[in-house]
Amino acid sequence: MRRLDDGGVADLNIAYIGGGSRGWAWKLMADLALEPQLCGTVRLYDIDREAARRNELIGNKHASAANVKSVWRYTAVDTLEQALTGADFVVISILPGTFDEMESDVHAPEKYGIYQPVGDSTGPGGIIRAFRAIPMFIEFAQAVKAFAPDAWVINYTNPMSLCTRAMYEAFPQIKAFGCCHEVTGIKALLCLAVTNILGEDFPADGEVEINVQGINHFTWVDKAAYKGADLLPVYGRMIEEIDFRDPANPLSKQFGANAVKFDLFRRYGVIAAAGDRHLVEFLPPWYRKNPEEVARWGYSLTAVADRKKGLAKRLEKSDALASQTEPYQLGFSGEQGVQQMKALLGIEPRVFNVNIPNSGQIANLPLGAVVETNARFSHNSVVPLQAGAMKREVQSLVAHVVSVQETVIEAVFTADKELGFNAFLNDPQMVIGLDDARALYEEMITNTKAYIPWLP
Amino acid sequence: MRRLDDGGVADLNIAYIGGGSRGWAWKLMADLALEPQLCGTVRLYDIDREAARRNELIGNKHASAANVKSVWRYTAVDTLEQALTGADFVVISILPGTFDEMESDVHAPEKYGIYQPVGDSTGPGGIIRAFRAIPMFIEFAQAVKAFAPDAWVINYTNPMSLCTRAMYEAFPQIKAFGCCHEVTGIKALLCLAVTNILGEDFPADGEVEINVQGINHFTWVDKAAYKGADLLPVYGRMIEEIDFRDPANPLSKQFGANAVKFDLFRRYGVIAAAGDRHLVEFLPPWYRKNPEEVARWGYSLTAVADRKKGLAKRLEKSDALASQTEPYQLGFSGEQGVQQMKALLGIEPRVFNVNIPNSGQIANLPLGAVVETNARFSHNSVVPLQAGAMKREVQSLVAHVVSVQETVIEAVFTADKELGFNAFLNDPQMVIGLDDARALYEEMITNTKAYIPWLP
Amino acid sequence: MRRLDDGGVADLNIAYIGGGSRGWAWKLMADLALEPQLCGTVRLYDIDREAARRNELIGNKHASAANVKSVWRYTAVDTLEQALTGADFVVISILPGTFDEMESDVHAPEKYGIYQPVGDSTGPGGIIRAFRAIPMFIEFAQAVKAFAPDAWVINYTNPMSLCTRAMYEAFPQIKAFGCCHEVTGIKALLCLAVTNILGEDFPADGEVEINVQGINHFTWVDKAAYKGADLLPVYGRMIEEIDFRDPANPLSKQFGANAVKFDLFRRYGVIAAAGDRHLVEFLPPWYRKNPEEVARWGYSLTAVADRKKGLAKRLEKSDALASQTEPYQLGFSGEQGVQQMKALLGIEPRVFNVNIPNSGQIANLPLGAVVETNARFSHNSVVPLQAGAMKREVQSLVAHVVSVQETVIEAVFTADKELGFNAFLNDPQMVIGLDDARALYEEMITNTKAYIPWLP
Amino acid sequence: MRRLDDGGVADLNIAYIGGGSRGWAWKLMADLALEPQLCGTVRLYDIDREAARRNELIGNKHASAANVKSVWRYTAVDTLEQALTGADFVVISILPGTFDEMESDVHAPEKYGIYQPVGDSTGPGGIIRAFRAIPMFIEFAQAVKAFAPDAWVINYTNPMSLCTRAMYEAFPQIKAFGCCHEVTGIKALLCLAVTNILGEDFPADGEVEINVQGINHFTWVDKAAYKGADLLPVYGRMIEEIDFRDPANPLSKQFGANAVKFDLFRRYGVIAAAGDRHLVEFLPPWYRKNPEEVARWGYSLTAVADRKKGLAKRLEKSDALASQTEPYQLGFSGEQGVQQMKALLGIEPRVFNVNIPNSGQIANLPLGAVVETNARFSHNSVVPLQAGAMKREVQSLVAHVVSVQETVIEAVFTADKELGFNAFLNDPQMVIGLDDARALYEEMITNTKAYIPWLP
Repeated sequence: MRRLDDGGVADLNIAYIGGGSRGWAWKLMADLALEPQLCGTVRLYDIDREAARRNELIGNKHASAANVKSVWRYTAVDTLEQALTGADFVVISILPGTFDEMESDVHAPEKYGIYQPVGDSTGPGGIIRAFRAIPMFIEFAQAVKAFAPDAWVINYTNPMSLCTRAMYEAFPQIKAFGCCHEVTGIKALLCLAVTNILGEDFPADGEVEINVQGINHFTWVDKAAYKGADLLPVYGRMIEEIDFRDPANPLSKQFGANAVKFDLFRRYGVIAAAGDRHLVEFLPPWYRKNPEEVARWGYSLTAVADRKKGLAKRLEKSDALASQTEPYQLGFSGEQGVQQMKALLGIEPRVFNVNIPNSGQIANLPLGAVVETNARFSHNSVVPLQAGAMKREVQSLVAHVVSVQETVIEAVFTADKELGFNAFLNDPQMVIGLDDARALYEEMITNTKAYIPWLP
Repeated sequence: MRRLDDGGVADLNIAYIGGGSRGWAWKLMADLALEPQLCGTVRLYDIDREAARRNELIGNKHASAANVKSVWRYTAVDTLEQALTGADFVVISILPGTFDEMESDVHAPEKYGIYQPVGDSTGPGGIIRAFRAIPMFIEFAQAVKAFAPDAWVINYTNPMSLCTRAMYEAFPQIKAFGCCHEVTGIKALLCLAVTNILGEDFPADGEVEINVQGINHFTWVDKAAYKGADLLPVYGRMIEEIDFRDPANPLSKQFGANAVKFDLFRRYGVIAAAGDRHLVEFLPPWYRKNPEEVARWGYSLTAVADRKKGLAKRLEKSDALASQTEPYQLGFSGEQGVQQMKALLGIEPRVFNVNIPNSGQIANLPLGAVVETNARFSHNSVVPLQAGAMKREVQSLVAHVVSVQETVIEAVFTADKELGFNAFLNDPQMVIGLDDARALYEEMITNTKAYIPWLP
Repeated sequence: MRRLDDGGVADLNIAYIGGGSRGWAWKLMADLALEPQLCGTVRLYDIDREAARRNELIGNKHASAANVKSVWRYTAVDTLEQALTGADFVVISILPGTFDEMESDVHAPEKYGIYQPVGDSTGPGGIIRAFRAIPMFIEFAQAVKAFAPDAWVINYTNPMSLCTRAMYEAFPQIKAFGCCHEVTGIKALLCLAVTNILGEDFPADGEVEINVQGINHFTWVDKAAYKGADLLPVYGRMIEEIDFRDPANPLSKQFGANAVKFDLFRRYGVIAAAGDRHLVEFLPPWYRKNPEEVARWGYSLTAVADRKKGLAKRLEKSDALASQTEPYQLGFSGEQGVQQMKALLGIEPRVFNVNIPNSGQIANLPLGAVVETNARFSHNSVVPLQAGAMKREVQSLVAHVVSVQETVIEAVFTADKELGFNAFLNDPQMVIGLDDARALYEEMITNTKAYIPWLP
Repeated sequence: MRRLDDGGVADLNIAYIGGGSRGWAWKLMADLALEPQLCGTVRLYDIDREAARRNELIGNKHASAANVKSVWRYTAVDTLEQALTGADFVVISILPGTFDEMESDVHAPEKYGIYQPVGDSTGPGGIIRAFRAIPMFIEFAQAVKAFAPDAWVINYTNPMSLCTRAMYEAFPQIKAFGCCHEVTGIKALLCLAVTNILGEDFPADGEVEINVQGINHFTWVDKAAYKGADLLPVYGRMIEEIDFRDPANPLSKQFGANAVKFDLFRRYGVIAAAGDRHLVEFLPPWYRKNPEEVARWGYSLTAVADRKKGLAKRLEKSDALASQTEPYQLGFSGEQGVQQMKALLGIEPRVFNVNIPNSGQIANLPLGAVVETNARFSHNSVVPLQAGAMKREVQSLVAHVVSVQETVIEAVFTADKELGFNAFLNDPQMVIGLDDARALYEEMITNTKAYIPWLP
């Protein structure tokens, strides 16, 4: 890494682990190419080497994009050691297993009446996915310890909390955080409240300030202010005055129905940040009893078959991109990764929401568990802002899931399948009888066992 | 109160609040009559004055029992002030509402598939019962503050944790504790393990030592020792070697099937102390999905109609007792109340399990919540023994219920029906959809509203 | 208050309490006049009304300074109510008592061998000063509660921790913080290390990042980084390589000898932020045994007589300023108050070090005590950054003083002179015998009793 | 070990480490011989093998004492392994170094005006003694881990807190506690208050109940009750009504002057348990400024020369005992060790005050530090009773010393002489200047370095 006179940084070294599914990799590539104050090298490592090489081609091609601001060199490498040695940043975005395993995660529980819209963060799907992902993240953490102990590690992989937690368990000195854009979404809704309810101009960046508390995809906002004015009652007015479920309302197309999010606000007086599809998975079957209930609340279940189609399309587009010869326009992804790198390089310190172990930033969640709050990013430093105590009723919902997560970590690190079942059984989604829970656990494990090396 | 030369106490003053249902009152009367080191007066207060007067008759009659050791004077009084003024001890054993309200508590949820064997401690039944009981305990606590601030208050009423918690909220300096015999039951099982598995003599009192952690009716034993030997593996052997579900086995008659208790031990490695009928109510519908599942686990649901019959029988027996003229034998109840009084009078300090606010005796439950642990009773003093941290998986189950309880307290003290619904909805039993939960809540409240004065 | 299109704020309302001694008031006046994004009114309240009126004259005169950027209206008022009603910010900078009381604070202990260079923050001088100041700050807090409950209160008065703590005790919802520039000084030394040891350019604002832990005037820096490089070893090299005690070294003139600060770094490996004259007062007489020892460590004792002369000079200058007719240049004070206002108005969020109650930002100091750490200032919000746990040896020194401070607060709020003696006796400076401690306490109280209304 | 039908235990195995100075060994021998429910073997290990052999002779001779109740076999052994293998209890009572080192501990600081009456628990003497003792206790703990991991270890050696703490640091699973009789003394004073102020009969054992909080030799009693009556005000009356300093008063001979203890009670309202000679060492030189001040407070400084004479006398007596041929009477020592063994064997559970790591029994002292509170001893179990939070002013004094102790532990375990100086310097006694402190530290270390193997 080399500092430039304008405050920027050249010769930055980024290791990208994963990215075979293209989505996240492309976003990062575009954001890097559009960032004038950074340039350097990205080493691409994926267990699917072909995917890494294809990303190498596409990444290097960006240098010829019409609006490129900064040239990056992409190189596919064959080992974690090659990717990590000398890295300033490590970005991890992998799929733990294949879509076939994901199919079991999401759909196997349906025969017991457990409907999961996403199935990658929590619930039976999230837990079994964690069983596969944690061993991979242990390997990553050990490789970081060996080859790039001072690098910052940015994780985009779900289950976010558990993957990040596993890295800290494996290498406690790691400088890792999980990064998620769901909180950005809630800021957009709050900006809408500023304009449509308060009648003010659209807030500039940073004018809406929120306090963030919870865990990834189950994060809550207990304070929100615009120029010092309390936005919570304004948000409350908005959800009564605007009908987000009316298909004729253009806002409903833009922002979604958010019926679950608004129902939770009415009940608890604080705002759930994530989308409804995530939120319902952290709760008992209040909103997921059956497909009719799902439809009634206005969110959708994603068949993994559709995800497979999505991937196929991205791969096609990948081929097209790799072989295209005309210049093209890059667009910002809206993700915060590159801004976070700049802050950590001291170029522009800022506050982001992140997922890191609780050292007291949330007073009433267990120390050590990975929680999501605001944190200040500056020169080589991520310092959480004190988020305070969560409201009791919401804390209870979150603490329940944290306890399940900590049990999952212990189960995988001790290779204890029965302890894993204790976690599985204690999940808020698990309201089927004991025998059904056991049968489902065995089935899901059998379906995905090729990726669960620690099973006895 | 007057100390005797032999270390005993005369002229003790006990206020007995409730007792109209006879059960607990009779037990205490017998135990007092059989205790040679105490004598004095019991003032009986019940909103059913007739019941108090009948108890007065019966209590005074005990003086002529064949095996009486100590003569007590019983007087029915008309006001809390009369009962409490000058009292050394206050015993509370009431029914919050009538069996009609209890019928709603227990059976209304059944139409939504929620089966409660007891329905008085937790779950929808326990919560609605608390809605009725808490205002009564606030009144008791205020009366104690006014008329007997130095008296010790022993509560036998369910929901035990919530009734006790309410008294501390209303009068923080109160010297109150909740008292429950379920832990005695688990000691009996451990003694059985000593004799039948270890082949030792039946343990003397105090030879089996246990550590107690949790909340009333959801208390756990994480350490048990007999003469210094670890009894947990011995218990584990017992539940494999003895078939408590075999009707031909006399032990199954004596101790019950305990299938839920043993299943929990197999899963968590620590012992749930209460009976299966209580345990299943603190958990999601793992063991209660439907009546078949209940039957399969070998415990029973009690129809409130049967409780009504039980009461009628006790009332008949009450008439018989009141009018009987021949001497009779009294029997010890097995309850600990009188022994606790003796310890608090300094006659015989001892360790009992009790329910009092957490001041750190359980490291990983919230401070202030009423928890159950061992405590040392001595002269005017109840000091908890440090019970340590609960095992994570079990702590999670218990903390969930504690959070519901604390929300119930806040709801009643602030007369907030919607906050009450938040508690109701967050109960582990509440796995029905949101609309059903709301409908059930409204129905149960309507059914019992005559006893919920704080409703708007 | 009115937002301007350029993001600035007009019609801001500031209440200034105190300022009679001119120093702080003039700094704020200059800084406000030089800040283009703010303008409005400052209402001046001082128990010395003449002083307030003189400041009114001077403040209004600034409008005609050569380099003025913003015009402010100054009005002296007669009551706290007039000053506070409608205030957006309240600035407090008072002298608790007169220099005669301060003379007793600083010099009375000398006859017992207790030498205090400043005597206003801690030790016998700081405690007796707090006895006078706390009742005043209780009055201010109550007036804020009554007339400006939403205003931000910035306190510059010493003892900083105790004055701020008293306001929170009197009005827990107050939005107050204590503000001190000593930490700025340590940043300057670190910048010197960057240039003179690392040979880098002088760091831009924000390039040196530090973690701040402790209490006012006894604050410690356990992490310091420049562009991600650890500055603690660099600081260590600097204090060995540069002789700050050599009078021929121009750096020694600019930065002072700092012999105590450097000695503490050598011993503890972390940096004490405040100047030596403050630091020695928080410690046993390690560096203050006698005037020779003071001289040997290269710092000075300030006779209050000199302070009186300083005040006289300021008053003269005040007259001169008030009557001067020619335009003049204003200079920035280097204080952060106006920048903090801008951050709290949402104009430019920033991190400052501040003194507010501990809600966990320092893990191993008591909750509720006023501590000094970094905090992020944004729209109507001051959120502490997590400063973590202090190093044990340093924590012990700080916790000792915190305990004394909390006892002082309790003593004044309960008007308990004996409890006040317990605080006085427990101060680290108090190593004289018991009888001498008692005699000194009585003498100092007698000397200053006109300002201690709560004495029995 | 073998259980007897009467509940007693035969073939008990006790390892006695140390005892060469005779005092504690003889007390234990007498108490064992007078205890009818225990018998077995004591293996004696001392680095002074001759002393162990002499104790073997004396111990075995006790079988012929006139009033012997139980016969024990004593065997001197040559290694820790021989002593510990098969041990049920381990008793440690050693002198860390010789009286020559102790002479330096106690008297070297006097030239700087630091007077220590005992010098073995805290202050410069206690710290340097700990430097010698901790390596020995590390060795003992490792030997216990290797040869008797299930044995209970009773430590009588000073500095009690640090020796016990070191064993837990070296072998965290050790079942060790420190045992001290100073608390017994305060109970005697409280009994005196019962008889002489309340006019009641002398309390039976257990009738006076106290709550104990603090660290060894600096333990405080914040609650004391006799038959439920609060004894603190009674104690307060006693110290005003009885003149313990009047030499004509027989009580002053029996109980001592206790002028420091009473002065502390007047100031803090809670009772310091230890004797004045210990108490003054935990405080700044309030009561120890010079020998005149010592005399004025009515306690004495012990010259180590006198201790040497005491030892010589014990050795003479030892020879006499070893060679005496006529039967003799044994007397109880008043120590609690044998009663603690009986409780741990399940023969008679009881509450004792002990020194063990804080797991929350004192809410406002650091976790892990060795603290002194009540604990319940039963079958193989020592469970602390919750002692609650200490009063702030007293907590501050105690926490200061705890911090010094924890620093000492870290210094010895990391062999860091400079960190050791940090502890030394932070001791409340250390109010001399920095240079003197450094000179004293070096001198004391040099004087005793033969026993400080970890010095660089």
